[in-house]
Amino acid sequence: MSSTEGKVICCRAAVAWEAGKPLVIEEVEVAPPQANEVRVKILYTSLCHTDVYFWEAKGQNPLFPRIYGHEAGGIVESIGEGVTDLQPGDHVLPVFTGECKECAHCKSEESNMCDLLRINTDRGVMLNDGKSRFSIKGKPIYHFVGTSTFSEYTVTHVGSLAKINPKAPLDKVCVLSCGISTGLGATLNVAKPKKGSTVAVFGMGAVGLAAAEGARIAGASRIIGVDLNSSRFELAKKFGVTEFLNPKDHKKPVQEVIAELTNGGVDRSIECTGNVEAMISAFECVHDGWGVAVLVGVPHKDAVFKTHPVNFLNERTLKGTFFGNYKPRTDIPSVVEKYMNKELEIEKFITHQVPFSEINKAFDYMLKGDGLRCIIHMEE
Amino acid sequence: MSSTEGKVICCRAAVAWEAGKPLVIEEVEVAPPQANEVRVKILYTSLCHTDVYFWEAKGQNPLFPRIYGHEAGGIVESIGEGVTDLQPGDHVLPVFTGECKECAHCKSEESNMCDLLRINTDRGVMLNDGKSRFSIKGKPIYHFVGTSTFSEYTVTHVGSLAKINPKAPLDKVCVLSCGISTGLGATLNVAKPKKGSTVAVFGMGAVGLAAAEGARIAGASRIIGVDLNSSRFELAKKFGVTEFLNPKDHKKPVQEVIAELTNGGVDRSIECTGNVEAMISAFECVHDGWGVAVLVGVPHKDAVFKTHPVNFLNERTLKGTFFGNYKPRTDIPSVVEKYMNKELEIEKFITHQVPFSEINKAFDYMLKGDGLRCIIHMEE
Ligand SMILES: NC(=O)c1ccc[n+]([C@@H]2O[C@H](COP(=O)([O-])OP(=O)(O)OC[C@H]3O[C@@H](n4cnc5c(N)ncnc54)[C@H](O)[C@@H]3O)[C@@H](O)[C@H]2O)c1
Ligand SMILES: NC(=O)c1ccc[n+]([C@@H]2O[C@H](COP(=O)([O-])OP(=O)(O)OC[C@H]3O[C@@H](n4cnc5c(N)ncnc54)[C@H](O)[C@@H]3O)[C@@H](O)[C@H]2O)c1
Ligand SMILES: [Zn+2]
Ligand SMILES: [Zn+2]
Ligand SMILES: [Zn+2]
Ligand SMILES: [Zn+2]
Repeated sequence: MSSTEGKVICCRAAVAWEAGKPLVIEEVEVAPPQANEVRVKILYTSLCHTDVYFWEAKGQNPLFPRIYGHEAGGIVESIGEGVTDLQPGDHVLPVFTGECKECAHCKSEESNMCDLLRINTDRGVMLNDGKSRFSIKGKPIYHFVGTSTFSEYTVTHVGSLAKINPKAPLDKVCVLSCGISTGLGATLNVAKPKKGSTVAVFGMGAVGLAAAEGARIAGASRIIGVDLNSSRFELAKKFGVTEFLNPKDHKKPVQEVIAELTNGGVDRSIECTGNVEAMISAFECVHDGWGVAVLVGVPHKDAVFKTHPVNFLNERTLKGTFFGNYKPRTDIPSVVEKYMNKELEIEKFITHQVPFSEINKAFDYMLKGDGLRCIIHMEE
Repeated sequence: MSSTEGKVICCRAAVAWEAGKPLVIEEVEVAPPQANEVRVKILYTSLCHTDVYFWEAKGQNPLFPRIYGHEAGGIVESIGEGVTDLQPGDHVLPVFTGECKECAHCKSEESNMCDLLRINTDRGVMLNDGKSRFSIKGKPIYHFVGTSTFSEYTVTHVGSLAKINPKAPLDKVCVLSCGISTGLGATLNVAKPKKGSTVAVFGMGAVGLAAAEGARIAGASRIIGVDLNSSRFELAKKFGVTEFLNPKDHKKPVQEVIAELTNGGVDRSIECTGNVEAMISAFECVHDGWGVAVLVGVPHKDAVFKTHPVNFLNERTLKGTFFGNYKPRTDIPSVVEKYMNKELEIEKFITHQVPFSEINKAFDYMLKGDGLRCIIHMEE
């Protein structure tokens, strides 16, 4: 039994007081976990576009003050009533979308869109009592996607924690909590390219590069990277990308350029941009008869996907995925094992490191498009 | 060796001299098969919408005089040079789309869209020499989709013939050449509903009812039939349809009605209308997390499929199929076996019979929307 069990913990957290304003490191109170909840000591966290997006709160419901953060690695400090899967000392990755193991989605072999714990960016409180576990001098601070990892201690639902191999280095595998697993799973679980096949990846951000990494692991013979920003291409080579296309360099639609390069189209394509034009190109660039395209990027709310239905009738398949179709508790531990057995390379995604006190630098890197992932060290 | 081998055969054929004008039974000359060709004695043929569509030639390239017909059963009369898979006396079903067994599509496990013999409605001649094997007093008469089964004898490419069990009654299994295999395969090969799942079928024509028959065979627990024509519903019950919806009877879009009836959506849906609004509904009515929708209907050339990309991201899949993903030579014999072992019921699709001399009656039935399939008996 830890000495803090059942007590409020006072610790540092990076609080967003207002949309778009630098986070402020504050002393916060973190309440003990309630039923089906777990309190976790965060050791490393990283920053993802989704944090920045909701922190900027342009066109989003603003919910402040709030503690962001959802890519992280930590150690269980204490558990609430009814938690049987985890105990203090377990190494865990918090995940922005959970797995209750009880609902129709959790029981389906195919879905990871848990009815109870599916991502909810509008909710700033715990499910159990509709209240926050964070406060400053008694005033509640909102949670974010059930994880709020920009805090030395956080409280999550047990269904939002993947228990992983304690030998795995948390300063590396923490990035598997979100975007990298999303891209990797989009390829390995959904597009499923066969060895020797041709793959196109749209968007060379962290998610797209993880999709390319998946294609490399699957043994694709050609990996065509597509991005509007040619400066991404040098970096992309590290992720197995063999050819690069910038749609701006061509008069023809990029799907036609790809079809010409590949004798009718690629076997698989994965869209990781969020741009609906890229989604259409990603679908139309796959080969008839057997091509499969997978959408990953989160589109604008008014976006419309448009294509001629004959593109489907010619035996093309279009799928979308959420978190790479990984069930967080069931499957993420095996993604960590892929890293441990050297199948998956994580280091190349980590381009920056900062101490927790300098967390705003991580926001600057991301806003400038500098690098891929910045690891934030909670212990300085 | 048949007494007619190597000789021109004179026989009766129903010739379309002009768009939309009744066919005329004529005496035609049928040349012997050339390399990789086969001459077939047709015993039974049936009529499909595609024949009527190209005969009406509204907005199509008119190609007359022509011999239509592509759903049929017959017996090989003689074979051309290089044909090794078939011999005189074999029972065959001609198919409008062939299988060369050599191209990338034929070699792919997934595709049936043969590069060489894929349906081509504009070609009225044989591939070998670019000429027709039919003539009347020396004047050539065009072929249709490589089959032209409205003739007592026809010549096809060997790749357009499925060799079937000689015990199978040709007056029944002839309908497996096109629409019925298309609908059946769309369900069994592409949508693949699991036992106990819920299935929606859009369009209660022969193709949609065959899709429903596939769902019945797969053990679906609920089969929801959707059609704008409520008079189809009584018939549909014979095909395992358990519930009926006419979109005209509801204020809400039919996909929302289906979602309410099924706690979020059906597991599988199959669109067999050709109408793009039905395609969109068929996609949007499947459950998130695992739903799969399959498009079968041939859309208008200017149709645009539109949906919000989030419908994909919520883990829905959209596929299209051509001829139910059956490879004609490899797979159609096994569909005949499904009938022989009483898994598949064909009789209920056959609603009319006419002698060859009354073939225009079959056109009248179809134009009036009366029944499903009319078997045309070549021997009277
Ligand atoms: N589905 C999920 O579970 C999930 C999880 C995490 C992220 N995402 C989404 O994945 C997408 C990618 O995330 P990221 O962090 O890698 O983003 P990112 O911004 O780092 O990378 C996106 C890249 O796409 C490129 N791009 C934009 N429009 C393009 C176009 N039309 N054609 C080609 N390239 C184009 C940009 O130049 C950029 O390099 C985002 O939409 C994000 O919201 C989804
Ligand atoms: N892909 C292939 O290989 C293949 C092969 C054969 C036929 N087809 C196509 O399959 C489709 C169906 O063929 P069929 O012979 O059964 O046709 P059909 O005309 O007999 O049946 C179509 C049915 O769809 C209904 N319908 C039309 N619009 C609708 C809507 N918006 N909502 C609900 N119902 C609607 C009609 O009332 C009709 O009952 C056609 O488009 C045909 O071209 C495709
Ligand atoms: Zn669940
Ligand atoms: Zn993220
Ligand atoms: Zn072929
Ligand atoms: Zn047909």
